[in-house]
Amino acid sequence: MLNAALLRVVLVRARNPLNIGAAARAMSNFGFARLTVVNPYEVAFREARSAVGASAVLARAEQYKSVQEAVADCELVIGTTAVGHRELKHPVMRLEQAGDIIRKKASPVALLFGSEKVGLSNEDLGYCHWLLRIPTSQENISMNLGQAVAVCLYELVRQSNTISELEKPQAASARMLDRTTTVLGEALYRSGYMTSDAAPTTKEKLRRLVRRLNLSKDDAETLLGMLRQIARGR
Amino acid sequence: MLNAALLRVVLVRARNPLNIGAAARAMSNFGFARLTVVNPYEVAFREARSAVGASAVLARAEQYKSVQEAVADCELVIGTTAVGHRELKHPVMRLEQAGDIIRKKASPVALLFGSEKVGLSNEDLGYCHWLLRIPTSQENISMNLGQAVAVCLYELVRQSNTISELEKPQAASARMLDRTTTVLGEALYRSGYMTSDAAPTTKEKLRRLVRRLNLSKDDAETLLGMLRQIARGR
Repeated sequence: MLNAALLRVVLVRARNPLNIGAAARAMSNFGFARLTVVNPYEVAFREARSAVGASAVLARAEQYKSVQEAVADCELVIGTTAVGHRELKHPVMRLEQAGDIIRKKASPVALLFGSEKVGLSNEDLGYCHWLLRIPTSQENISMNLGQAVAVCLYELVRQSNTISELEKPQAASARMLDRTTTVLGEALYRSGYMTSDAAPTTKEKLRRLVRRLNLSKDDAETLLGMLRQIARGR
Repeated sequence: MLNAALLRVVLVRARNPLNIGAAARAMSNFGFARLTVVNPYEVAFREARSAVGASAVLARAEQYKSVQEAVADCELVIGTTAVGHRELKHPVMRLEQAGDIIRKKASPVALLFGSEKVGLSNEDLGYCHWLLRIPTSQENISMNLGQAVAVCLYELVRQSNTISELEKPQAASARMLDRTTTVLGEALYRSGYMTSDAAPTTKEKLRRLVRRLNLSKDDAETLLGMLRQIARGR
């Protein structure tokens, strides 16, 4: 996984304070701290910084006058673009693959986002090693800046190799399941569903059925309460 | 890949028109069309719909009074939550794994997002088969609604198996590279770097060097122009 301190998110000429704030929020959500703004629309930047709940990310944001200065300490500079094949002089990679590459980096990486209206200029692109494209639908390739930042950062923290394991509530213990089976048997006996001389195979069926319900501790307790009442009768 | 028509994005009690608009925009970006709102703050929904550039997604949004009605035709209902282990009665899955499951579905799926302030209520959760958690940092788990929708939808369209192939500009032809090598040799000869009786291994070195530059057609042409001028002299 990428060392978050290595990533510099660079917003170039962002104009909307809400978008600057949203980019900072996404960074905070995904554990990134190094926000850099290049020539922001000054009013927007001031507003974003003074907004209620403006984050620590925003407070610590660095400000530069040019892309060149902003990315000077980075060994890999990646521009974001909505376009697949423009008259791009640069290689363009889909976000999925870009993520693979960025996650493996052990040196500073800059990720550039252009202004809301026109994206990155040709001059900005001149500082980029390659470009990254979020795989949007051809019908609407233009993403909101804050959402684009969120999607890119999610890709970077994404774990492709996590085992598909549910974070489950605590499961019922075997003792609990046994008790449930017994009381279910009593309830069924009382209801006339089973006779007192039911075959052992019938009881085994009940036991397996209760296991298949995959009960949590809480659910097993609730169910046991219901069954007890049924077994006891009024 | 998921059939986009199978996914219903359900916003429950959303209060902010900008967020409703942002959710719709992300849906459009990633090719999803079925937006459903449950008990939105009416003013917000009206504002979102009438906003400049409000999308077709928003215009076609369905409105319901309850989660129950909104998800009635879905075979899998997934709630989104910021929380890992709350006193959750539900299994919670990380977005990466949830994506794996949802992408394989061939029947309607609902993805529920709660209100900005309090998320989904316990009653809403009662209609969910399981919950999905975006892997945010523990320090700031609360995502903006529009950004959360964008990140979830990106995961659904994400292609894990795309070959890591750059969309490169047209590469220079072998002929072009040969010409560049020759002219580079002439320039080096003229500059005194190489003598006219340079060993064949020196020329081979140049040839390999030029190949390693990995030149595009355009860049090779530019470079050739420069070298010709250097070789020719003033």
